[in-house]
Amino acid sequence: MINNKIAIIGLGYVGLPLALAFGEKFNTIGFDINKNRIRELQSKSDSNFLSNKKSFYRSKKIKFSSNTNDLRDANIYIITVPTPVNKNKTPDLRYLRSASKTVANNLKKNDLVIYESTVYPGLTEEECIPVLEKYSKLELNKDFFVGYSPERISPGDGKELKNISKVVSGSNLRSTNIVYNLYKKIIKAEVYKARSIKVAEASKVIENSQRDINISFMNEISLICSRLGINTSEVLEAANTKWNFLNFKPGLVGGHCISVDPYYLSYKAKKLKYYPKVILSGRNINNQMGYYVANILLKKLQKKNLKLSECVVGILGVTYKENCNDLRESKVLDIIKVLQKAKVKLKVYDPIVNSKDFNKYYPNLKIKKIDQKLDALIVAVSHKEFLRLNYKKIKNILKNENSIFMDIKSIFNDKRIKNKFDYWSL
Amino acid sequence: MINNKIAIIGLGYVGLPLALAFGEKFNTIGFDINKNRIRELQSKSDSNFLSNKKSFYRSKKIKFSSNTNDLRDANIYIITVPTPVNKNKTPDLRYLRSASKTVANNLKKNDLVIYESTVYPGLTEEECIPVLEKYSKLELNKDFFVGYSPERISPGDGKELKNISKVVSGSNLRSTNIVYNLYKKIIKAEVYKARSIKVAEASKVIENSQRDINISFMNEISLICSRLGINTSEVLEAANTKWNFLNFKPGLVGGHCISVDPYYLSYKAKKLKYYPKVILSGRNINNQMGYYVANILLKKLQKKNLKLSECVVGILGVTYKENCNDLRESKVLDIIKVLQKAKVKLKVYDPIVNSKDFNKYYPNLKIKKIDQKLDALIVAVSHKEFLRLNYKKIKNILKNENSIFMDIKSIFNDKRIKNKFDYWSL
Repeated sequence: MINNKIAIIGLGYVGLPLALAFGEKFNTIGFDINKNRIRELQSKSDSNFLSNKKSFYRSKKIKFSSNTNDLRDANIYIITVPTPVNKNKTPDLRYLRSASKTVANNLKKNDLVIYESTVYPGLTEEECIPVLEKYSKLELNKDFFVGYSPERISPGDGKELKNISKVVSGSNLRSTNIVYNLYKKIIKAEVYKARSIKVAEASKVIENSQRDINISFMNEISLICSRLGINTSEVLEAANTKWNFLNFKPGLVGGHCISVDPYYLSYKAKKLKYYPKVILSGRNINNQMGYYVANILLKKLQKKNLKLSECVVGILGVTYKENCNDLRESKVLDIIKVLQKAKVKLKVYDPIVNSKDFNKYYPNLKIKKIDQKLDALIVAVSHKEFLRLNYKKIKNILKNENSIFMDIKSIFNDKRIKNKFDYWSL
Repeated sequence: MINNKIAIIGLGYVGLPLALAFGEKFNTIGFDINKNRIRELQSKSDSNFLSNKKSFYRSKKIKFSSNTNDLRDANIYIITVPTPVNKNKTPDLRYLRSASKTVANNLKKNDLVIYESTVYPGLTEEECIPVLEKYSKLELNKDFFVGYSPERISPGDGKELKNISKVVSGSNLRSTNIVYNLYKKIIKAEVYKARSIKVAEASKVIENSQRDINISFMNEISLICSRLGINTSEVLEAANTKWNFLNFKPGLVGGHCISVDPYYLSYKAKKLKYYPKVILSGRNINNQMGYYVANILLKKLQKKNLKLSECVVGILGVTYKENCNDLRESKVLDIIKVLQKAKVKLKVYDPIVNSKDFNKYYPNLKIKKIDQKLDALIVAVSHKEFLRLNYKKIKNILKNENSIFMDIKSIFNDKRIKNKFDYWSL
């Protein structure tokens, strides 16, 4: 066991913490095709803010590399590449296929390949293993083994990998046990053996789909409450006094997991001739919320008889989640899209997003502190810095008390904020 | 306060415990139009098994009556009549209107009317108050007052009324406070003042709608897992190792609340030109589950080359919930419907259902202990008595090891049960 040499393929939100953890116990190669990322990690820095200096120093046996030659002498490969969706919301398996091919080219007798990427049930066996077999010319469960252990990284909330329980599975009983013992070395929480790879795959997609459904329900309630002329958060506060009410909130659902995984599950279900009504209706609602918020704002501005092209609107926070710099699937990007189309002048600020990342979406917008009086301010993400906003600061930044304050995450409780401005929350 | 005389209109699952609780502190009239129910309550017995003898004896100031004359000297009326749906799933407000009329005919200056029935947001003000004003010729908030406090009774799980937190609201600030102080006398748990009747109404319908959605999600997962050829409960067990996974189970959703309330909310939403996609897709899935289970069974019987009209199928449990005798909206009734249509011979047993109630749905079926060898046994409800079933007992009741055992609630873990029979669970 101790002689294992582990290679982690893909060093993003999932791969890096995993590589650092294994690097404490085993000779580990942290591999990524992105050379800039490798340079940054070699200097013990993580621009995702997920792993701190300490964890780099603790990981004495890790070596970062973008050279496939360095993969040669590993005997365990763990693939943690992204599994996004295409524009039409079908699975985009390019990274997974390409990583599988890279691994296959280095695969030797008795090696083990573990997938951590979120996939639909059946994908590892139907899509990945054939690639491994084809390019390695080796045979599964005779020459090499496969495991699946879904990642459960939750960026921005401080949970450590070792404290997150983990599901493991394998292509046969032997590989399941090897995968189990391997993760046991780095995970203090429960390591749970699933009966099959398919069961482990399914368990992961349903976790995020469940969260998606629950938030979509809250969003639907918010849409209904708005038509009823009552305040959603008051209704939720009352309902939350019931012992078994689930404290979800309406909101903008983005990110690489919750807003993607349900499409993977739906893709597979549709292949099996089942159209997932609940899952996809939730997805549809959640997908609309950015547009909904932007259109509420436009209507409000028009009601004030303001000329849209003369309005200045500030947006605080563009990432999909608080205290996380990830922009993928962020619904704030949809808000920006609608407001730009309406020719509103936008001032966008986010203290932790990488400007370059943002400019891939909107090359003409600068991320910078808001330095102009606003007709409307949208606090879209509850980054720590924005929690320090108060009535006085908001008053200073808005043109007047008739100006609009959109508290998307319902994080402001000060009655003056709610009563003195044209306040709106989901 | 102490001089209040309270009348509770409707003595079902909601009204009786409430009447008994108030009867400990106030002169209370428990009113119901059903004379049999009144006779039974006068003899200190509750055929719903919700209130025990002790609670009748503790309630020294209660008087049960079906005579409207006895309502005359009450000054607080609490309406707890059912709010079911019509065949087309629209709100059936007959009981509510008729109870409102009865109260209106007895209403005097300064009286207070409180509704506990589950309704859609706006219903109390739009439907009930006009009836009260019309027949009493009194004016709201000048001559009389209205409150709304949604019931949260949960039959069969042993929760006592006084320990269940309660939301209260009123037609104005004064009545809100009176309603609050009134319930404070009988509720030890939190009593929460909602800002308006509409907010309180909304909080209640969303509680049950949330539960409905979550179970519908599990049912959809079960439908997908079945097509994937994997076991739903194994997938859920794995997913449940995640810290924030919600431990719902697939199942038959029935009863007067969860399978009805979402229709009330949807009805109102549609009136406001919003079609609730998430809520209704959940409802649709949950509505199909009885038919789904029955059809799985028919397919299994046919696969065994059995002639359906010669098959004997046992059903254990017909109510909508364990340890509760309520048949309303029970999906087991749908299972029976499909199997009867297929001419299967049915043997139905339920230890707590009232035979007369059951025969209203199926006059030709008897509720009695199963005394014949079966081709299939469905354990549809997890009544206490059925939890004592084991491998040996099931073996004795089934024709052979090829016979079908349908464990709808996944309550049997014995490997012999799962492996030796043709076992199926949701």
